Parts: sequence; structure tokens; C-alpha cells
Amino acid sequence: MRILIDMDEVMADTIQRFLEWYERDFGVHYTKADLHGTKLHLIVPEEHRSMVRQYPHHKDFFKDLPLIENSQEVIEELHKRFEVYVASAAMEFPHSLQHKHEWLDQHFPFIHWKRRIFCGDKSVLKGDVLIDDHDFNLSVFTGRAIIFTASHNVNETKYERMNNWLDAEKIFDLK
Amino acid sequence: MRILIDMDEVMADTIQRFLEWYERDFGVHYTKADLHGTKLHLIVPEEHRSMVRQYPHHKDFFKDLPLIENSQEVIEELHKRFEVYVASAAMEFPHSLQHKHEWLDQHFPFIHWKRRIFCGDKSVLKGDVLIDDHDFNLSVFTGRAIIFTASHNVNETKYERMNNWLDAEKIFDLK
Repeated sequence: MRILIDMDEVMADTIQRFLEWYERDFGVHYTKADLHGTKLHLIVPEEHRSMVRQYPHHKDFFKDLPLIENSQEVIEELHKRFEVYVASAAMEFPHSLQHKHEWLDQHFPFIHWKRRIFCGDKSVLKGDVLIDDHDFNLSVFTGRAIIFTASHNVNETKYERMNNWLDAEKIFDLK
Repeated sequence: MRILIDMDEVMADTIQRFLEWYERDFGVHYTKADLHGTKLHLIVPEEHRSMVRQYPHHKDFFKDLPLIENSQEVIEELHKRFEVYVASAAMEFPHSLQHKHEWLDQHFPFIHWKRRIFCGDKSVLKGDVLIDDHDFNLSVFTGRAIIFTASHNVNETKYERMNNWLDAEKIFDLK
């Protein structure tokens, strides 16, 4: 069984980086709870929106991102049993490519370069399962689509849901 | 119809870079004719082999590569009629990622980031046609596999062959 796993908000905590940078630039501390069912650029004052939306285009945005809880140990376990690929729609952010590769080397060294994919549109990927936080990726995937809970997608009801990495143990019968 | 197109030796002339760097380092000028049915590291003196094989790992190897003849105009024509993606097994060479993206921006700006894929193993790609110079990519692809002639693959007989980009006009009925 081939399982494709998205990076941002599934393995790497990009929301945390958004919150950090917003506090650095505007002195206001939002939390993940504030983002329930929405995204940062939608709740900040309108005059800050375009700047927040530009953050991922900055060359250091994807550098040294924190990990999503339990992602390392559970993905390593999945990797032992299944054909695990990382599939990130990284192409929108050219500066992210090198950082994402280095980040995988550092935190997921067991995921060989042959099992890494940076793409744009995920309709081009062939696999049995896709674990992703975005409707626009899951909706074009032809296999089993599992939504990984992130603050912005909590109201999405179209997909099978994985609330966190410990959920994977049940979904894939790891125990 | 979705057509996936490989980069190295199909759009970008990496062989030329190998020949240039070998001449720069060892003062010997090989030509593409010398590579008929083989690869540079297999014909150079044995003591140079490992250095030649390391070239693509150097951070500047993929920077500003020359174009394969007629690739721009024919791929633009294909792009107008079909769903064209660039699919490069770039993950083996992390330094290449940024350079490849910039090279596409420069020479193939009409190929949107959504249509760019950097992967390891091409078995994960879903498409109708793959144009590639390597047996190891073509053999794992489930659609129509077309081998693009490069010096190293001239003796390969397993695939439908495209000798150069002008051939594409006949194969895809562009005229």
C-alpha cells in the first residue's frame, strides 16, 4: 500500500511560523485557538493581510519549522510497514525547496530521496492513500483521501479525518 | 491528454555540462559522438570516474544549462494543446532544486508551477505519456512510455522513440 503524506500542517508546523512572524512584525500574539475554522490572514486587520499572505514566499519561512506532534515516530512506523512517500505542493514557494529537503534530512532521514515529491497540483500523483490538510489536494486525488486536522479545516466534512498522528495507529492498525 | 516531460537530457543539456567540466578539470575534450551508447564516467580513465560521477552533486552543476535543440518551441506547442507537466527526478541532487526551478522560469515560463514536479522515483506519477531518456523511469511508468534519444540510450529498443523535438510534431500530430 502506497501512502502519500503532505508536509505543511501535517508533518511541519507552518501555522506556528505564521503566528511567530505575525507577533514579531505587529506585536500581537494570536494562538492556534484563535484560528479555529479560519486562517491568520482572515482574522488580522485588513491592512496586514497581504503581508501575512506573503510570508511563505520569504526565503526563510520554511527553514527549521517545528514538528507536528508525534509525526516522527508514527510516520517511521508507517514507513516500516507501507510504501510511504512525502508529497508537498512546494512549487508555489521556490525558496522552500532546499529548506524542505534539508528539513526532511534532519527530521525524517529514513524517508529516502526516492520517496520525496515536490509538486504543484496533486492530481498527478498515484497512490492508495493521501493524508493532507487541504480540500484542494484531497479532492483531486483518486485514492483514499484522509484529511489531517488543521485549524483551518475543522469544519470540513467531506473526508475521512485523522485528528492527529496517534489516530494513524488505529486507522492503519499499527498496534 | 496529460504528457509528462523529463528535464535532464530532454529539455536541458546536462551532457554538455559533463563534457565542459571534464575538459576544465582534466584538459581533455570529449564530444557527444564519443559517448555513443555509453556515459562519460565509463570512458574516462578509471581514476577520474568517481569525480565525474560527483559532478551533479556540485551546487552549480544544474545552473544555466544549455537547452536541448527545439525543446522550447515544440514544448510550448504541446502545452497549448495538451496538459503538459515537467517531471524531473531531481531529489537525488538537492542543490539542483532551486536551479531547476529558476531554469524553468527563464526558459519555459509558460509552464506554471502547478505543472512542475520534482520527484525521486517516477512510479508515483499518473499521466498518459512520459517522455524520458532513462529506462529506469520509463519502465515504472504505467502510461505510454517514449524514450527521448540521448547518447547513453541509443541501443535501447524497448520503447517507442523520439529522436529529437521535431519528431514530436509527427508523434503528436502537431502540424
